[in-house]
Amino acid sequence: MASASYLRMFTARAFESMGVPADDATLIADVFIRAEERGIPSHGMLRLKDYYLLWKEKRIKPDPHIRIVHESPSTAVIDADMAIGMVAAARSMQVAIEKAKTCGTGWVATRNSNHFGIAGYYAMMALPHDMIGITLCNANPLVAPTFSVSRLLGTNPIAVAIPAGKYPAFVADFATTPIARGKLAISAKKKEKVPLGYVQDELGHPSDDPEILKRGGAMLPLGSDRIHGSHKGYCLGALVDIFSSLLSGANFGPFVPPSIAYLPVPKNQPGLGTGHFFGAMRIDAFRSAEEFKAMMDLWIETFKKAKPAEGQERVYIPGEIEREAEEKAAREGISILPAVINDLKEVASCLGIDFNPD
Amino acid sequence: MASASYLRMFTARAFESMGVPADDATLIADVFIRAEERGIPSHGMLRLKDYYLLWKEKRIKPDPHIRIVHESPSTAVIDADMAIGMVAAARSMQVAIEKAKTCGTGWVATRNSNHFGIAGYYAMMALPHDMIGITLCNANPLVAPTFSVSRLLGTNPIAVAIPAGKYPAFVADFATTPIARGKLAISAKKKEKVPLGYVQDELGHPSDDPEILKRGGAMLPLGSDRIHGSHKGYCLGALVDIFSSLLSGANFGPFVPPSIAYLPVPKNQPGLGTGHFFGAMRIDAFRSAEEFKAMMDLWIETFKKAKPAEGQERVYIPGEIEREAEEKAAREGISILPAVINDLKEVASCLGIDFNPD
Repeated sequence: MASASYLRMFTARAFESMGVPADDATLIADVFIRAEERGIPSHGMLRLKDYYLLWKEKRIKPDPHIRIVHESPSTAVIDADMAIGMVAAARSMQVAIEKAKTCGTGWVATRNSNHFGIAGYYAMMALPHDMIGITLCNANPLVAPTFSVSRLLGTNPIAVAIPAGKYPAFVADFATTPIARGKLAISAKKKEKVPLGYVQDELGHPSDDPEILKRGGAMLPLGSDRIHGSHKGYCLGALVDIFSSLLSGANFGPFVPPSIAYLPVPKNQPGLGTGHFFGAMRIDAFRSAEEFKAMMDLWIETFKKAKPAEGQERVYIPGEIEREAEEKAAREGISILPAVINDLKEVASCLGIDFNPD
Repeated sequence: MASASYLRMFTARAFESMGVPADDATLIADVFIRAEERGIPSHGMLRLKDYYLLWKEKRIKPDPHIRIVHESPSTAVIDADMAIGMVAAARSMQVAIEKAKTCGTGWVATRNSNHFGIAGYYAMMALPHDMIGITLCNANPLVAPTFSVSRLLGTNPIAVAIPAGKYPAFVADFATTPIARGKLAISAKKKEKVPLGYVQDELGHPSDDPEILKRGGAMLPLGSDRIHGSHKGYCLGALVDIFSSLLSGANFGPFVPPSIAYLPVPKNQPGLGTGHFFGAMRIDAFRSAEEFKAMMDLWIETFKKAKPAEGQERVYIPGEIEREAEEKAAREGISILPAVINDLKEVASCLGIDFNPD
């Protein structure tokens, strides 16, 4: 078990060694460690080596000039100048929050960015301001639209954080596919089949092979097949794609640049880098925050009291599982896979810094 | 086959006979007929009798005093004074559009409203203004959250309309469940089973019985089961519920009033009537509308060119199926079921007007 504070310090130092200013490095480290704490290690320390390699390839800029290129009272478009995604995203969400302070709501579309870690992090930035926070982001194309075999959409997450009163906030943060991509990798490593409804083969037939993407297969949208509403999952993924790219002029669908250095950037890109979309909505632009939060408490109580199905113990409020993981991580520390430890040692050595988590 | 123009005229006359002002009656009729034309008869003429009965019970007001009760530069809360949902919704979306004109975006939460027909109608009102339109609405509770047997959520639709250039607009309009409720009724009438993944029994076990809701069963969220991501469908349904009710002070989840007169209004309601949520986003608050629409054309072309799965002919753009239905309806007229014709004759007779569609 590694301590969160050591991992935070190490990650910040690693990014500082790449030339990232101290404040930005601290922010990036916080996003990495929150992913570990919230039980989403696929977006945590595992990714640090990818960021290092992207930096080596000059595909991310450690000290970018992030600027607003277009705005209205409630909106802005931000060009992130190839920033590390976390820096671009936090800056963008901050602009959305400032707009919401004066205008009721703030909406920011960002281009020329990169992979930003967990979407929920930025949505949750709105909570201390008694605002609802929203984050959308498209991702590398792996998902085929309903009735198709072409991989045109990413797992395109939606995150929405809504403040409550005496209860912790409602935080939804989910991919618009039945599973995250990481689940396929884990099943492949364990030599296990996956349930039907996650992937299809190169002709569009159902498949249980977690490695089918290597042979022309594709992931399926939420709903899995047409009969179970995959066209709705396709609509959702498409909406996230359009909001994340076309409002700012970033790349959509098949043109989204990969967040892994050994995969080349697609040619003839119609847009600029990776895009995101952020929203902040001041609760008291609608009604008093106290009234709203009291009603959110009643909403949460109503859903907590829902009768469990046979064999189930409880019904979860969105965000509850991640918050319980955070509490466990605070008590027990963070477990990092040996392969990831080795990667971190390698990166540390290349950057001329130490890595001693024990 | 009935002509759209006759049905439009008849529906407007029916609502005028209930005391609805002529302009509002024309609007309501337009929403009804567009539902028929777009191939969504579950929200068309079939519902007219329900509206008549709600009016008889004084649960909808023909000539309400709709007013803004709270606002900020980009937001408003509207109290619809028990208006017919179409009137409340169109007035609310108009306010969102006006806010977007001055502020970049406009967001309106509405309370004290009623069933409003097809959500896509109001989202599409934004299109002629070169705006993106958004509509959310919660509905009568029929859906159980993941791991639960309690019916706490409706089929809670999401509609988003996005303007394009030379192609028709992208219009997504979908329930956050695998199927609309009407599909269950149709299967029940045909004495057919439904595929697993639509409904569960009173203990939460999978069921193929379309009438299981009469015996304590529930509909399932998009994703169908936990393994296939039903917790994401639950998140979506919950988000639509919270946005549609808690921002304006309308009723959430289990307290949403039924839109059918023979079902009683729940007791101890924490809010006021049915709620909706509307958004309008001016494209040029982000970038020039021409640039955006050219990129939407490229997006649509890219997805139209997607390779079909084996046995499929084409990949659809959201809204394409409904638009093709509209073209067919314009050529061939609208087919109304004999049982619905009888209902309409009955309503006409009660209101002292004629109904002769032939």
